[in-house]
Amino acid sequence: MMWHATILTLYPELFPGPLGASILGRGAADGHWALDTVNIRDFSDNKYGSVDDTPAGGGAGLVMRADIMANAIDSVPRNDRRIICLSPRGRPLNQPLAHELSQGPGLIAICGRFEGIDERVFDARQIEEVSLGDFVLAGGEIAAMALIEACVRLIPGVLGSASSLGEESFEGGLLEYPQYTRPREFEGRAIPEVLLSGDHKRIAKWRDEQRNEITRTRRPDLWERFSTDGPIRRSNNKEPKT
Amino acid sequence: MMWHATILTLYPELFPGPLGASILGRGAADGHWALDTVNIRDFSDNKYGSVDDTPAGGGAGLVMRADIMANAIDSVPRNDRRIICLSPRGRPLNQPLAHELSQGPGLIAICGRFEGIDERVFDARQIEEVSLGDFVLAGGEIAAMALIEACVRLIPGVLGSASSLGEESFEGGLLEYPQYTRPREFEGRAIPEVLLSGDHKRIAKWRDEQRNEITRTRRPDLWERFSTDGPIRRSNNKEPKT
Repeated sequence: MMWHATILTLYPELFPGPLGASILGRGAADGHWALDTVNIRDFSDNKYGSVDDTPAGGGAGLVMRADIMANAIDSVPRNDRRIICLSPRGRPLNQPLAHELSQGPGLIAICGRFEGIDERVFDARQIEEVSLGDFVLAGGEIAAMALIEACVRLIPGVLGSASSLGEESFEGGLLEYPQYTRPREFEGRAIPEVLLSGDHKRIAKWRDEQRNEITRTRRPDLWERFSTDGPIRRSNNKEPKT
Repeated sequence: MMWHATILTLYPELFPGPLGASILGRGAADGHWALDTVNIRDFSDNKYGSVDDTPAGGGAGLVMRADIMANAIDSVPRNDRRIICLSPRGRPLNQPLAHELSQGPGLIAICGRFEGIDERVFDARQIEEVSLGDFVLAGGEIAAMALIEACVRLIPGVLGSASSLGEESFEGGLLEYPQYTRPREFEGRAIPEVLLSGDHKRIAKWRDEQRNEITRTRRPDLWERFSTDGPIRRSNNKEPKT
């Protein structure tokens, strides 16, 4: 079964958008994953196509209705996929969650707009909430794009060379080491000598030290976790050994 | 001066994309903000249009060149804007940073691809790194969209009613309270009675309790900070008093 994302949104015309470019677009063309959209407005029960109503208890804005949202969800073949609503109240997305989702059958993503979605549908349809971070967007669409891009690039075959995955940020719980390329000198700044030495052992050691140092100074929270728990190992790593 | 975002990218055709929809699209049409793009490939120095080269010291993938990136940056009128590269090694985006950026003249966003950008250009052009969260994307484009959406919706006039900003997630350091709307009963689930009482004092108290409870159970890290420091006040709040 191909990894499959279904997006429930009021703006289906925004997809695939950036998810159709570059390696993700090629990955879809090559049959590694697929995306479709459901227009929530198609489940409106009135001639205006409205899907929202005023908040119970008062307040600004509009709230998306539970019954209409439930009907939109029920129209989608579930195929064991998790239903995820992008929301700042959710569990923060991180690399282990992206790995976990990339190894499953795909996901159903719900993009809220307005002041949010009637709380009752979360429980009624077992919707998980996932957050990109501690900031607020105008809707869930860009957040859904980020979630799906984070997952799809981990599907075996989507990135040309799987070997670059192992050394990137958060793999092992550290940030990435700095990269350099030609020209050898740029505005008086030279490439660090060790990287030109050809001594692979020294290069590996220098890169390890850089990862430690960058993580320690920029993200003491990650460094603390790394120092305490050691390298993160994913419990369910199905990536091919390369 | 209008708030102005310039995006440096290899995929200018992806913009405005989701940034052109809904309230952000209307905000641009109404002259509250503007966006333009620079194609980094236009600054390639060879007939193939390549902008990258192999990593010094070896390793998979390709690294974007510092000299080409610097030329692309130097082509953009700076106008006191901060230059921000979207990168998992950056400072995590949060709501106070979005407020800070929304109150300035705009920003210049750099979208990396491949294995990253030659480290030397960050220092040479005083580029700040900002991260969406602890996950890895295929490129900086979706992250730049999220950053810009988070900022632009805070520009006065972009959201129809500014009054909804004050009660959303992270304002004051807490997550948002749950929302309900018609129908009064959905699959046997009723709207909480207090919200139908018309008693505004009781409703406000209930919503406060819900914000506390949701933050405490879902995000003990935020709750800890809130309990220690009290409500977050932005030091440089230039929003109109409404």
